[in-house]
Amino acid sequence: MPRTVSDGGEDFDGDVSSQTGSHRYTDSNSTHHHHHHGYKVGFPPAKGLLAEFADGVKETFFADDPLREYKDQPRSKKLWLSLVHLFPVLDWARSYSFGKFKGDFVAGLTIASLCIPQDIGYAKLAFLPAHVGLYSSFVPPLVYAMMGSSRDIAIGPVAVVSLLLGTLLQEEIDPVKNPYEYSRLAFTATFFAGITQAMLGFFRLGFIIEFLSHAAIVGFMAGAAITIGLQQLKGFLGIAKFTKQSDIISVMESVWGNNWQTILIGASFLAFLLTTKYIAKKNKKLFWVSAIAPLISVIVSTFCVFITRADKQGVAIVKDIKQGINLPSFHLIYWSGPYLAKGFRIGVVAGMVGLTEAIAIGRTFAAMKDYQIDGNKEMLALGTMNIVGSMTSCYVGTGSMSRSAVNYMAGCKTAVSNVVMAIVVMLTLLLITPLFKYTPNAILASIIINAVVSLVDYEAAYLIWKVDKMDFMALLGAFFGVVFASVEYGLLIAVAISLGKILLQVTRPRTALLGNLPRTTIYTNVEQYPEASKVPGVMIVRVDSAIYFTNSNYVKERILRWLRDEEEQQQEQKLSKTEFLIVELSPVTDIDTGGIHALEELLKALEKRKIQLILANPGSAVIQKLQSAKFTKLIGDDKIFLSVGDAVKKFAPKSALNV
Amino acid sequence: MPRTVSDGGEDFDGDVSSQTGSHRYTDSNSTHHHHHHGYKVGFPPAKGLLAEFADGVKETFFADDPLREYKDQPRSKKLWLSLVHLFPVLDWARSYSFGKFKGDFVAGLTIASLCIPQDIGYAKLAFLPAHVGLYSSFVPPLVYAMMGSSRDIAIGPVAVVSLLLGTLLQEEIDPVKNPYEYSRLAFTATFFAGITQAMLGFFRLGFIIEFLSHAAIVGFMAGAAITIGLQQLKGFLGIAKFTKQSDIISVMESVWGNNWQTILIGASFLAFLLTTKYIAKKNKKLFWVSAIAPLISVIVSTFCVFITRADKQGVAIVKDIKQGINLPSFHLIYWSGPYLAKGFRIGVVAGMVGLTEAIAIGRTFAAMKDYQIDGNKEMLALGTMNIVGSMTSCYVGTGSMSRSAVNYMAGCKTAVSNVVMAIVVMLTLLLITPLFKYTPNAILASIIINAVVSLVDYEAAYLIWKVDKMDFMALLGAFFGVVFASVEYGLLIAVAISLGKILLQVTRPRTALLGNLPRTTIYTNVEQYPEASKVPGVMIVRVDSAIYFTNSNYVKERILRWLRDEEEQQQEQKLSKTEFLIVELSPVTDIDTGGIHALEELLKALEKRKIQLILANPGSAVIQKLQSAKFTKLIGDDKIFLSVGDAVKKFAPKSALNV
Repeated sequence: MPRTVSDGGEDFDGDVSSQTGSHRYTDSNSTHHHHHHGYKVGFPPAKGLLAEFADGVKETFFADDPLREYKDQPRSKKLWLSLVHLFPVLDWARSYSFGKFKGDFVAGLTIASLCIPQDIGYAKLAFLPAHVGLYSSFVPPLVYAMMGSSRDIAIGPVAVVSLLLGTLLQEEIDPVKNPYEYSRLAFTATFFAGITQAMLGFFRLGFIIEFLSHAAIVGFMAGAAITIGLQQLKGFLGIAKFTKQSDIISVMESVWGNNWQTILIGASFLAFLLTTKYIAKKNKKLFWVSAIAPLISVIVSTFCVFITRADKQGVAIVKDIKQGINLPSFHLIYWSGPYLAKGFRIGVVAGMVGLTEAIAIGRTFAAMKDYQIDGNKEMLALGTMNIVGSMTSCYVGTGSMSRSAVNYMAGCKTAVSNVVMAIVVMLTLLLITPLFKYTPNAILASIIINAVVSLVDYEAAYLIWKVDKMDFMALLGAFFGVVFASVEYGLLIAVAISLGKILLQVTRPRTALLGNLPRTTIYTNVEQYPEASKVPGVMIVRVDSAIYFTNSNYVKERILRWLRDEEEQQQEQKLSKTEFLIVELSPVTDIDTGGIHALEELLKALEKRKIQLILANPGSAVIQKLQSAKFTKLIGDDKIFLSVGDAVKKFAPKSALNV
Repeated sequence: MPRTVSDGGEDFDGDVSSQTGSHRYTDSNSTHHHHHHGYKVGFPPAKGLLAEFADGVKETFFADDPLREYKDQPRSKKLWLSLVHLFPVLDWARSYSFGKFKGDFVAGLTIASLCIPQDIGYAKLAFLPAHVGLYSSFVPPLVYAMMGSSRDIAIGPVAVVSLLLGTLLQEEIDPVKNPYEYSRLAFTATFFAGITQAMLGFFRLGFIIEFLSHAAIVGFMAGAAITIGLQQLKGFLGIAKFTKQSDIISVMESVWGNNWQTILIGASFLAFLLTTKYIAKKNKKLFWVSAIAPLISVIVSTFCVFITRADKQGVAIVKDIKQGINLPSFHLIYWSGPYLAKGFRIGVVAGMVGLTEAIAIGRTFAAMKDYQIDGNKEMLALGTMNIVGSMTSCYVGTGSMSRSAVNYMAGCKTAVSNVVMAIVVMLTLLLITPLFKYTPNAILASIIINAVVSLVDYEAAYLIWKVDKMDFMALLGAFFGVVFASVEYGLLIAVAISLGKILLQVTRPRTALLGNLPRTTIYTNVEQYPEASKVPGVMIVRVDSAIYFTNSNYVKERILRWLRDEEEQQQEQKLSKTEFLIVELSPVTDIDTGGIHALEELLKALEKRKIQLILANPGSAVIQKLQSAKFTKLIGDDKIFLSVGDAVKKFAPKSALNV
């Protein structure tokens, strides 16, 4: 236990000397400066292998300390906590009130009105019958409401996952020729998407999705949105024969050829939808206008088509929609045969993408309302929901950004808004589905285009451009990958760029030359602080990264390069030669055998040049490993200091201090 | 240009006040402590996109600044420098002297005597005719001598690459049934190994091989050595039918069944070789005893077999060896057909492994003699050498650790020792190769076993165990992968573990709670320094890594967890509540949009808890990005300090300082 400062006798700053008087040297000529405060580099208490391993496992898999609540509890309480952990509903339902229900009820109705037209459209995007989209907004939200921990997420089919699933599935089976086999493969993929999500959550491997960077996601989403938007030109322009390829060239090629009624319906309703979106953006209180506009469009246009029978004049309509709620589909999943493996592969990809979206949404709204989301628990909930969904004729669902935002703004309090939505969808399925038969495809296209417009997050893209150009390259890579190749390639490029960036940064860490800020003991980067001055005869280098095998050679050679540059400058300006090299290790959070080996080689190289190597402020992991490898003995314990200031005081030539 | 301290008026340490007198506060009760030295966090000069990009490219691909010499030189000089860059021989040959040649001559003879028996043995390991091994010690060393920059490396076939090549090749073509096609595929693989190496060097992608960690290499080498050793039991025990599988179980199964003469020869010479190895280890001056022992063994045993005709009594002999130097093999390389792709794949793997070994050897000896090795240039040299080799009937060669060590100890000065060796091998090929026909296989097995014994680097393994348990796991993974699965699997496991370790460390960086070392301005990890004391009302957290999308959520949640733990402790001990959270950013070398987003979320969470967020000592990259993202405005410029000490002085409650 560290002590707490409470007595006034101790002060905080080394440059306060008059009052306490003790432990101070006030003579700058003195050569006894070193170790004036009597602290040596601390060696942390050594840990056993098991303790170290357990710590590592804990920080990796249980970073959020989920077992904390279980400590010192009786067994019955532990059982209850486990149940609550699996089904958070048991916890929040107890404090549920009518006041909360009012909020949830209104929000539930609002997202239901938004989800019904979207579901039908997204199902078409996945080449599935329209009612499968509605099914997916009935069962999964109910499962999520019991197991999920987000209060704001709205569950159901989403545009990007539908597009991805549709693209991957139709590469295997033709959805027009073999719709039955196609839907069987879709349920198989949904099952494995759920298994993937649940397993990641169960084995607490949630951190895997963090390898997809924000920039890559922004690029991927924008690319997917543009691809979807272009694909929707099909329904919108009423083109009968349309390419199933998702790249921009194939899409553009098939845009020519149309039906004027369809174009009229599509264009006018798209204008209407975009207007309501604009209104909602200008006045946040009118968000409901844009939320119910799609349903109004559907109702109005369906009614128009129904009374004019425009479908007989070539306006394409939904047609393929069935009355009644979800049928069991357990027996439809491919439990064997070649499609099992294909379903598995597609499911893993769709499951990961779905996960990324849901977790991002969950975190965003949790941060807004300041509550905690357990990523691994969420994955378990989403996974279970998709497993159950795959057995009840649903396809992959996840959190929808647009509907979640509406849910939040409509004042939802808990996941009960999802239950309200599910009930409304159920009533729709039971009572009015047949009417959607006459909904023109053009209207669905308008709704999808309107929805995906917000996926193009140009503000985020601009921010990324400003902050980090390399991140922006990742964004562009993912974007063009999706637009010009395919959704999978875009995803692959996004992951590759994200990982590549990390690896590159580990391989080429920054180093900096330090100088002293006059009249302080602070040593800072001379590039960042031009007022910082070098100490003659002493070169101070800071390594800005852990030293691992990936960068140890680079670090060693970079330091020697600094030294060479310095020596050239000294010769030019006839300054005194460098005699001491201080390596500031504060940012060096860890070192491995490769790193220690590089330090040994650095020491050898410096010895040849008659320069002494001095280390400043090694952290606990570093000093422990340097000691185990006997490097501390090799270099000498008296060459390791707590701070650069201490080291300089000991080694800087007197001339620099007081000539 | 930072100024250089040279006037005595400026002192280095904040706690020296009596002499200069100026800019000092001596009253610890004063509330005007903050910014006492008047320095603000420095903003580095903003760089344009192109400059930033160019810098990034330069540090990644031209870390060693190879164009430095070309600066401000006339064109003819630049051309000369380029030539010298490609052929370092042009540089060092000009200062070559007889004194150096004496060293090189002796060293060359010594490594020739060592390489002849090894080459024959290693060729057998790769299922190639014995003379191909000798060929590979003739042409490649000559090419390397012109292009390479290491002075100590001994070029030729090595055990691990031979084993790897043999394993991979015989999976495609049976070397006994189709020796002609087998050797064609071997030359094809050698060609692509060379191309891989040369391309990596040419595009300056040399850093790729650094992703294979030292620990993984130690494990891989030990595993390969044990596999080779067991395989050699074949020749040693004279077993005719022997498995070609390289895993331990298949090898053990086929050990039973033998010929007493063979065992006698093998066992006695192995004992002799190991004895000379032991002598050389005890007395470094007698290294030549172990260096020439293999050749003596070969001569003696061959002579014995020749006069007794023991081969007729069942002692297996080399047989398959041809007189004369290398024949051209350009026409033998598969330039089309299915074997082109197979040769390519095998070549890439063998090339990378060869590279890893050669670069490690080059660096080790360069560090001993203190000269620089340019990794990318080396790769180009090794690649060219293997390309030329593939067209002159050689198989993949690289730097041999055992022969390089002998070369070094025998006093080599330049790559001329390789030339001497090549000439001796050439004379051998021209004059005495037929005699090797009678060399018993058992002797070659003894020589290989004797050579690979040193690949089991148990001292390095023990050091790795002591320094880093996780690294040791990587070692074990690679070791058991090679021993129980195959060479390729072992390599794959080694790479996977190496990369996984990096990614994991990026995902879960360390964080530390800081405390003040009494009577200083230094704030250190309270775990490492038990004397460090917490400041009441202020929590100081240090993040020990760049904050990227991979870890930003973890970092945010970890900080909030520290806070929660702290609050619990405060409640228990009735201490004052935390009002300020200082995040020490010195080790945070970089941040991306994900990281900034996490900081924003942290800020929000803290605001809800009425805790102020303060940042200390952001580096140049970090402050620049925080500013572009407007986070500095969001948090307030007055909340960003140059050091933790400054921040504490401003915000710590007075009670802590002077009650």
